[in-house]
Amino acid sequence: MTTATPRYDPREFKALTFHDATTRFRDGADTPRAYLERCIDTIAAREPLVKAFVVLNEAGARAAADASTARWRAGRPLSAIDGMPVAVKDLLETRDMPTELGCEAYRGNFPKRDNAAVWALRQAGAVVFGKTVTAELGGTHPGPTTNPWDPARTPGGSSSGSAAAIASRMVPAALGTQVGGSVIRPAAYCGNVALKPTMGGINRGERQTTSMSTTGVHAGSVEDMWQVAIEITRRAGGDPGRPGLFGPPAPPAAAKPERLIVLETEGWAGLDAPNKFAFETLLESLQRSGVTLLLRGDHPWIEALEQGVANGRAICNAITGWENRWYQRNLVDQHPEGVSARLKATLARAEMMSVEDYRAALLRRATAQQCHVAVAPLADAVIGLSCAGPAPLWPGDVPGQPLAPRPTGDFVFNAPSSMLFAPAITLPLMSVGGLPVGVQMMGQQHEDARMTAIARWMLGAVTPVVAR
Amino acid sequence: MTTATPRYDPREFKALTFHDATTRFRDGADTPRAYLERCIDTIAAREPLVKAFVVLNEAGARAAADASTARWRAGRPLSAIDGMPVAVKDLLETRDMPTELGCEAYRGNFPKRDNAAVWALRQAGAVVFGKTVTAELGGTHPGPTTNPWDPARTPGGSSSGSAAAIASRMVPAALGTQVGGSVIRPAAYCGNVALKPTMGGINRGERQTTSMSTTGVHAGSVEDMWQVAIEITRRAGGDPGRPGLFGPPAPPAAAKPERLIVLETEGWAGLDAPNKFAFETLLESLQRSGVTLLLRGDHPWIEALEQGVANGRAICNAITGWENRWYQRNLVDQHPEGVSARLKATLARAEMMSVEDYRAALLRRATAQQCHVAVAPLADAVIGLSCAGPAPLWPGDVPGQPLAPRPTGDFVFNAPSSMLFAPAITLPLMSVGGLPVGVQMMGQQHEDARMTAIARWMLGAVTPVVAR
Repeated sequence: MTTATPRYDPREFKALTFHDATTRFRDGADTPRAYLERCIDTIAAREPLVKAFVVLNEAGARAAADASTARWRAGRPLSAIDGMPVAVKDLLETRDMPTELGCEAYRGNFPKRDNAAVWALRQAGAVVFGKTVTAELGGTHPGPTTNPWDPARTPGGSSSGSAAAIASRMVPAALGTQVGGSVIRPAAYCGNVALKPTMGGINRGERQTTSMSTTGVHAGSVEDMWQVAIEITRRAGGDPGRPGLFGPPAPPAAAKPERLIVLETEGWAGLDAPNKFAFETLLESLQRSGVTLLLRGDHPWIEALEQGVANGRAICNAITGWENRWYQRNLVDQHPEGVSARLKATLARAEMMSVEDYRAALLRRATAQQCHVAVAPLADAVIGLSCAGPAPLWPGDVPGQPLAPRPTGDFVFNAPSSMLFAPAITLPLMSVGGLPVGVQMMGQQHEDARMTAIARWMLGAVTPVVAR
Repeated sequence: MTTATPRYDPREFKALTFHDATTRFRDGADTPRAYLERCIDTIAAREPLVKAFVVLNEAGARAAADASTARWRAGRPLSAIDGMPVAVKDLLETRDMPTELGCEAYRGNFPKRDNAAVWALRQAGAVVFGKTVTAELGGTHPGPTTNPWDPARTPGGSSSGSAAAIASRMVPAALGTQVGGSVIRPAAYCGNVALKPTMGGINRGERQTTSMSTTGVHAGSVEDMWQVAIEITRRAGGDPGRPGLFGPPAPPAAAKPERLIVLETEGWAGLDAPNKFAFETLLESLQRSGVTLLLRGDHPWIEALEQGVANGRAICNAITGWENRWYQRNLVDQHPEGVSARLKATLARAEMMSVEDYRAALLRRATAQQCHVAVAPLADAVIGLSCAGPAPLWPGDVPGQPLAPRPTGDFVFNAPSSMLFAPAITLPLMSVGGLPVGVQMMGQQHEDARMTAIARWMLGAVTPVVAR
């Protein structure tokens, strides 16, 4: 298990896609059942090492795929994702599989309910057939999943299994959730595309207890990513009180941006030379394509936005820690041995906070959001890294040693879009040392479709960078 | 069981209070344990007819009261509500009592967790000693509680038991929750004071799935009402993403308003003559005290606000129906016999909605909120009725007959403050036909303390109206 054999090349890797299979469903050359069986074969081959899934419901999936096959044969699919195998992060409830939240205290938890987004997937005819590994309660304590490009490395978290399942070509799409960086970062470490929508874009259903969590979509293609997101929202809407994802019923056409703001964020200072070089090479390629880049020195409002998000990690941790503390306190009291030492340490920090500390963090978040709104007229989108380089090595906790602070990687490049409630899409446009490094497009709130259009252009027009 | 003996006179009724007992705790003339025992005696006497409680934890309460007694004796109370017996609506989780949500499907549900506000009450030393009857899931299907002023009438809902427990002098304060009118209306029918805070003012804990629900406080006095609310918020804050209730650590001093807007709302047209007469008599009394009243014809912005809330009931029902549908669909699928026909009918209506219908309702709500903000410079507060007259008779459903639409009363006068996210306080300032009718003060968002100050002035300066 070493990194001696780098394997990821974004110019060559072909992810699993679904949108281009449906024409063959119509003419009978392929079927959703056969598609599913190929996914099951891939899982059988790769799962022993990748460990993306907590549980599979193969019988239920086969029945759903057969029903979908009959609908396509009759020319009456329920949607463009009818028959699509979709994996679901094990934080979201599913009526036909347990929901264990990556947490020992929830072992065997089986509420037999469908999360609103899962319900919507089923209404659209998608085949919900497995629950993917999550870091404990969507936090930082890792599950068993390994990075498909190097089993000694983390796949990222907390949507670890969803990210790894896409990169392993096990499924064309999977649901994840993000509070700090739990969709974009693992997708970036694995070489996927993923959408972390505008806050509230996809109905979180029963999971409403934090003010900056979103349900997002991991996929092998931008087309499938968009289609899954919009089919859910058309049926289940967004979070309570929010209008939900806006955009067309099919993936928006590619659109070239004229101007992009390059956001450094607090992650830039800690970035090593190979990753800086790779990103700068990508930016040069964009400039050669005629895209104007705006840096922090180019406009005072961009500098203000940089300053607004400069403590993004701390702001996100304060807000989320406070919001989770009652839930976590109850859990620790009920199951003192059922939660990790990492979670207990997070809770202890949150329990030091006062309501005034929380209000101060909310104010810093709101201020940063205003700074983000202010740059809207300057450019079509913000571009930045999705992660601080390739997925780190993760050898596991060592008994008696201090806990590694971030075993699933650093969310320093993800805190901004989370705290800004902004749509973010990661694109597999770089490889550093033979491992994926994602590039992130971020838009104003409710510009999810516009970001998707820019993402399509980027993937078609920009040559991925392979560094070192 | 008839209404032949009207008994309620707001000029004479003395509700149970706590704030004026604590000086005796300090000097040893009284103790929290003795206070609790008096509450338990009252419950023993009145509970057989009123049926306010689902469950009591007398042993736990006595232990908590004894601990409080020791703290007062040592001169180290945890807060101004240390030792206060508080009842909790059975929608909120409590670690030491079951939480059955007024719903057959939840019979025996005992998650052994504390809701954030309940946790905060315990931190402040309050004695959490009973769960009060709620209409099913906080909706319209009633529980067994009767109105303390006439057992043939509803106490209102959905916070039925909390309201009735206050009016029966069983406890000095109780928690309720309101989506449409579930705090203010039952309090108004029972003759209590109650605060429905600014949306998000008191942390709802695990109950975050609707965008306009609030946890509120029923009490026998404005002083206890404020103290309970602020002690909770100082410890558990507000809802995720919201700053929580603002205001002083002790009840704000009485403040006379200079100008009040009289809001008719869609309830006015259906009001009968005795109730109109009583309210107009109260308004005349305010004018005699030197308060200027502004009516809908006096300013175009007031007329715009009236129009903004004119379909408040329908807007509230659409928003809440949509937000609850996935939760309720799961429940009905799992427990088809465990929920009422009333709830199933509500769900069926919600399942006819599209996301566009929901977005339209959100837009109407947001527009009404803007109209409310616009009147802020015109007056100190809005005054209106808390209910459409006294609590209606409720003989129970008749098998084979259509379901009565509103067995716990009409929320037509409560929809405005709910959809405006505005703080509302009901005051027991009227009696019509020998039964309580509440009067409501509504402020701009985050003006909870200002409304409390005005409420104190009203209770001290305005003679209650006794009509017919």
